[in-house]
Amino acid sequence: MANIKEIARIAGVSVTTVSRVLNNHPYVSPQKRAAVLATIEQLNYTRNMNAVHLITGRTGAIGVVIPNINYYYFSAILEGLAREALPAKYRLILCQTSYRPEEELQVLDMLRNKEIDGVVIVSTALKPETIEAYTAYGPVVTCQDSGERRFSSVYLEHYAAFWHGLQYLRNKGYRKIGYFEGRQHGSSSGLRQKAFGDFHRESGIPLHPEWIMFDCATEEDGAAALDRLWQMEERPDALIIAGDHVAAGLMIAARSYKIRIPEDLAIIGFDNQPIGRLLGLTTIDNQLFEMGAAAFRIIHDQINEDAPSPVYRKLDYRLIERTTV
Amino acid sequence: MANIKEIARIAGVSVTTVSRVLNNHPYVSPQKRAAVLATIEQLNYTRNMNAVHLITGRTGAIGVVIPNINYYYFSAILEGLAREALPAKYRLILCQTSYRPEEELQVLDMLRNKEIDGVVIVSTALKPETIEAYTAYGPVVTCQDSGERRFSSVYLEHYAAFWHGLQYLRNKGYRKIGYFEGRQHGSSSGLRQKAFGDFHRESGIPLHPEWIMFDCATEEDGAAALDRLWQMEERPDALIIAGDHVAAGLMIAARSYKIRIPEDLAIIGFDNQPIGRLLGLTTIDNQLFEMGAAAFRIIHDQINEDAPSPVYRKLDYRLIERTTV
Repeated sequence: MANIKEIARIAGVSVTTVSRVLNNHPYVSPQKRAAVLATIEQLNYTRNMNAVHLITGRTGAIGVVIPNINYYYFSAILEGLAREALPAKYRLILCQTSYRPEEELQVLDMLRNKEIDGVVIVSTALKPETIEAYTAYGPVVTCQDSGERRFSSVYLEHYAAFWHGLQYLRNKGYRKIGYFEGRQHGSSSGLRQKAFGDFHRESGIPLHPEWIMFDCATEEDGAAALDRLWQMEERPDALIIAGDHVAAGLMIAARSYKIRIPEDLAIIGFDNQPIGRLLGLTTIDNQLFEMGAAAFRIIHDQINEDAPSPVYRKLDYRLIERTTV
Repeated sequence: MANIKEIARIAGVSVTTVSRVLNNHPYVSPQKRAAVLATIEQLNYTRNMNAVHLITGRTGAIGVVIPNINYYYFSAILEGLAREALPAKYRLILCQTSYRPEEELQVLDMLRNKEIDGVVIVSTALKPETIEAYTAYGPVVTCQDSGERRFSSVYLEHYAAFWHGLQYLRNKGYRKIGYFEGRQHGSSSGLRQKAFGDFHRESGIPLHPEWIMFDCATEEDGAAALDRLWQMEERPDALIIAGDHVAAGLMIAARSYKIRIPEDLAIIGFDNQPIGRLLGLTTIDNQLFEMGAAAFRIIHDQINEDAPSPVYRKLDYRLIERTTV
């Protein structure tokens, strides 16, 4: 393998110029850049970036722990992340974990092994204490409320947002409320479940556990949950649904039952997705794009500017009134 | 930084045992593994993976060029890729390029720089000749038909699949066909456009260019395209739509116009997405998950088993009859 000195000699330029071309530095004349590139081509020179990383201690890469790429909530956060990472010239190393702790640990291990400069955890099955053990090796940001830990977080108050939605339904006169949720065991969904339980207790509205449907991840799950609900003797008159796409599936299925929305069944969604906008779905906007973008900005500043760490950033939610309540 | 010998000495085990623990080798007794891990913790030992990669020449990572994560067509391919990569213990280095050639070149440059073991190009703005120049550095697989190039490809015959859909509409008696498409300039969408033009020419059906709507990427774009169409004096009686989610947006918007489907307007989609299944949308299944999965298997075998390269794999399409034609 040719080295930089050899390239400089053959191209008739200085070693500094070769280095500048390799690093995409702007202050190189077009003639000299062309000469260097032609020489590189001729010598088939490859700069081994592993050696570069070994010397600089930076990789320009961030690990992303994401349970499932094809789920709107996560892919919207990822999109927000990627939009910021692109202009900042950071690569994202994506690990789809399906909530398997061993896969998540592997990404954290990459931080320990200096293969990446930081980790963004979109959603996790790990205990906060486990994540904390890795903060010695570099910055970590979670996209969920993990409490005041040794790592950063950017999060929505799922408890307050859900409570707000339930209060809205109650103010509109609804007292028989069902609830469709994704994962039963998860940090954010746990907060929503707690809000659902506490709200019923505090407002004295009877809670029907049979109207709580878990594992609603897709449009078809929403339709199937409505099928189960409509086979029951007693039915809710309102639903709160974590995921506008799940609500959309239910709304489409509701037509074959001739269910009028909101007269027979009011619906409030979560996420503010495009499909919900089209269907006139009343929903809670939880700023998913901004969550991903903010996570990137936090970790970027901690890597490059020694910004204070940890940072806890709470995002606002907003109820969007449309036509389904 | 402590070295392996030091860890072995303190833990009271052999250097081989330490090495096995670091490499997650199964044949280490639980006692010895615990001793090694405790010693590592105590010494805060970090194995620098960049040094490991420098020695082994392998990174266990594959670069993925993807224009947009949040677009169903691409995210479904990515999901197929990720599902295979996870059990094979490969990391995906994701680069969302927005079809910017300089971003795509950066991923190919990572291959040249030995930062990754291969590149999967989900969709590209680069010329095939440009991609060919990088095949000297490692395997490249595209998820589109690039012809018989020096890199591999796994692809759907978009021309034949679209022709099949148009033929189906014609056999059902439709002669006034409109067409919603994503990007106007793209390798796969170019093939679909050619099929649309050729089909009209060959079957003697007049083509209405004003019924071709480009840049239909989201549900809301589908709804907006219907708005434009319905302001026209002469309207199509059938539509072929690249993207079931775009068709879903149109179908939802069609209700406010009281358009009966298929009586007033027949619709055939593309992708076989969950939302289309719910809406009873007749569609063309183009095996997006399998495309991603096959791309991973091809590149994995080329990296690890010196499998023959390049490979060209054509996937089958299938028309799924439901209720919209």
